[in-house]
Amino acid sequence: MSVTAPRGFRAAGVAAGIKPGRPDLALIVADAPCAAAAVFTTNRAQAAPILVSKEHVAGGRARAVVVNAGCANAGTGALGLADARAMGRATAEGLGCAVGEVVVASTGVIGVRLPMDKVRTGIAHAVRELSADGGPVAARAILTTDTHPKEIVALIAGGGGAKVGAMAKGAGMIAPNMATMLAFFTTDAEVPAALLREALVHAVGDSLNRITVDGDTSTNDMAVVLASGASGFRVDGPGPAFDAFRDALTEASRALARMIVGDGEGATRVAEVRIEGARNAAEADRIARTVAESPLVKTALHGGDPNWGRVLAAVGRSGVDVDITRVDVLIGDVWVCAGGAAADYDEDVAHQAMLEDPVRLTVRLGSGPATGWMWTCDFSRGYVDVNAHYRS
Amino acid sequence: MSVTAPRGFRAAGVAAGIKPGRPDLALIVADAPCAAAAVFTTNRAQAAPILVSKEHVAGGRARAVVVNAGCANAGTGALGLADARAMGRATAEGLGCAVGEVVVASTGVIGVRLPMDKVRTGIAHAVRELSADGGPVAARAILTTDTHPKEIVALIAGGGGAKVGAMAKGAGMIAPNMATMLAFFTTDAEVPAALLREALVHAVGDSLNRITVDGDTSTNDMAVVLASGASGFRVDGPGPAFDAFRDALTEASRALARMIVGDGEGATRVAEVRIEGARNAAEADRIARTVAESPLVKTALHGGDPNWGRVLAAVGRSGVDVDITRVDVLIGDVWVCAGGAAADYDEDVAHQAMLEDPVRLTVRLGSGPATGWMWTCDFSRGYVDVNAHYRS
Repeated sequence: MSVTAPRGFRAAGVAAGIKPGRPDLALIVADAPCAAAAVFTTNRAQAAPILVSKEHVAGGRARAVVVNAGCANAGTGALGLADARAMGRATAEGLGCAVGEVVVASTGVIGVRLPMDKVRTGIAHAVRELSADGGPVAARAILTTDTHPKEIVALIAGGGGAKVGAMAKGAGMIAPNMATMLAFFTTDAEVPAALLREALVHAVGDSLNRITVDGDTSTNDMAVVLASGASGFRVDGPGPAFDAFRDALTEASRALARMIVGDGEGATRVAEVRIEGARNAAEADRIARTVAESPLVKTALHGGDPNWGRVLAAVGRSGVDVDITRVDVLIGDVWVCAGGAAADYDEDVAHQAMLEDPVRLTVRLGSGPATGWMWTCDFSRGYVDVNAHYRS
Repeated sequence: MSVTAPRGFRAAGVAAGIKPGRPDLALIVADAPCAAAAVFTTNRAQAAPILVSKEHVAGGRARAVVVNAGCANAGTGALGLADARAMGRATAEGLGCAVGEVVVASTGVIGVRLPMDKVRTGIAHAVRELSADGGPVAARAILTTDTHPKEIVALIAGGGGAKVGAMAKGAGMIAPNMATMLAFFTTDAEVPAALLREALVHAVGDSLNRITVDGDTSTNDMAVVLASGASGFRVDGPGPAFDAFRDALTEASRALARMIVGDGEGATRVAEVRIEGARNAAEADRIARTVAESPLVKTALHGGDPNWGRVLAAVGRSGVDVDITRVDVLIGDVWVCAGGAAADYDEDVAHQAMLEDPVRLTVRLGSGPATGWMWTCDFSRGYVDVNAHYRS
């Protein structure tokens, strides 16, 4: 399972003491330097590990990924940047590789320095623990408020057994934009860095960029893919092999996205918001995001209340020029709103549709051919409980 | 108190049975037709009463405002539009005035038709109950999930006793944009419609447009002012008299805004988000709104947690091009973040600053002279409880 399913990778997860009593430091290591690609948060407040990893991945090569939970190393200034570099250096020394081959990632509280003694000890420990079945342990060591690990393996069609393995953390500060929370992909396909990046951007754009828990795009979002080539399956340009690889990567990324939103902080229910009939994809996505982030839609979702008026109101305030008299809304297969007004529907049947998994909220704009979608979760008392005292 | 404090107005509030067991229909009537101005929601899904009142106020004259709670008459299509017109007509007939002199407003559940028999009976009842001290009763009859009425009177400086009276409803679906939830102002100053509109746009822009409870701009937002001229104080052009009137209107509007955010659904705490050092006012306002709407900032506010990292992250994702290494954050007078990193502060003192009323969250960008601000409230379990089953 997880990132060690493809050939050519080892992983480990250890308790370094950053998050007392829990595994909190993970390492993914390729047997040899490999092609790599990554996308990063668009938040202007970028965490120190983001700045360091951007530099390191720029050349399209990497050997290892080191990740800690419990401290985001964000809002830590020049000292935090030095810490992130030292974290990469300690990993490179432990593995005997170049520091530029190490991707550094952190997640946790903002504004607090990393306890570097614990990080260094943890890295040394993780290097000793590396194993070809260490993926699941690593997947557990990157979690924060998540309630369970998120890992997946996708087979590449026609790839002769070549795979994509992946793990992620989610839960809070989730509204990825051009990247995601922490998501790590490995593959034993051989894929040049440029194609790897193209596939990653496609996969993330159709999965992790379409989820929201709270609308708060994180300072630390990062999605990384390493390709070992150890399976012998080779992607060397556009064509069926590339398509098969991209599809497997997208499948894995969508599975992680679904797990993240389903395990959103306090989440008890997931909804798929689908916008049809928009003039263009950008407008469809903007409306989908507005509906998916609306606190009133999310609390109605929590209560199982088919309150389509809140969906209509969110569509109307999205900033897109919509003719509301042409707007239809469906909950599941129940047509609740036609032409901007209540349709003739059965409230009990609509209520049942609010209990499906996922709840399907479809908005038809009737003004063009474009579609868009988002996955979101409900807003519960649990979300408030998790976040009112997160640091204490 | 309230809208009957200025001379020349009567009001009433009655229980029409739209919202069982509570007063739910209010009437404000001027003794004679008066100058009027109004601003309306920018939501593309505009409720039927918005469409009707826009027509009626376009000429700058009005005699009466009729308001119901319990049903928004939004998402009701052509039939809802006919209902809103009938509501205006019934009021005009009861008062013996022209239908175009009646402002119609509704608030409550979206997607449900008005019970017109109850509305007609309620209007007839309210006409009989009209009195020169009916303001407070009217203020109670427009509430939905509000926990107390919102009313205020402001004296016009140098106005020889001329006043501005006002009432509002708030609580949920509150993120006014170019208007507000329902807010009704009266004045016994004599102000031509064009100047009345200028003063209203100014007042609302510096008060009701700067509050958010949940980021959900309503389908029914409306702010209306009627000027009876009954005090003899006259505003006939730019100058000190206009300034004094505008200031009194702004003071009343800010008082209502503060009451609305303090009585937000589930609210236990209010914060003033202040942005300084922005390049321009639009960027300052955009950042202020992003911070004020962040669920993570609002839950930290609920917990009294001085979690400035969430403020920094919200600034970073606002869409404004910010140099995060120049950003300072203060909570109250405690400098918690300097140059994008933790300042040397005492956590207990910062926690104390989170218990002030309002909590003051100040962000200094260091990139220009412009400022902006918003008032927001916390996100509590109470918000979830109020909204998960709002319609049941």
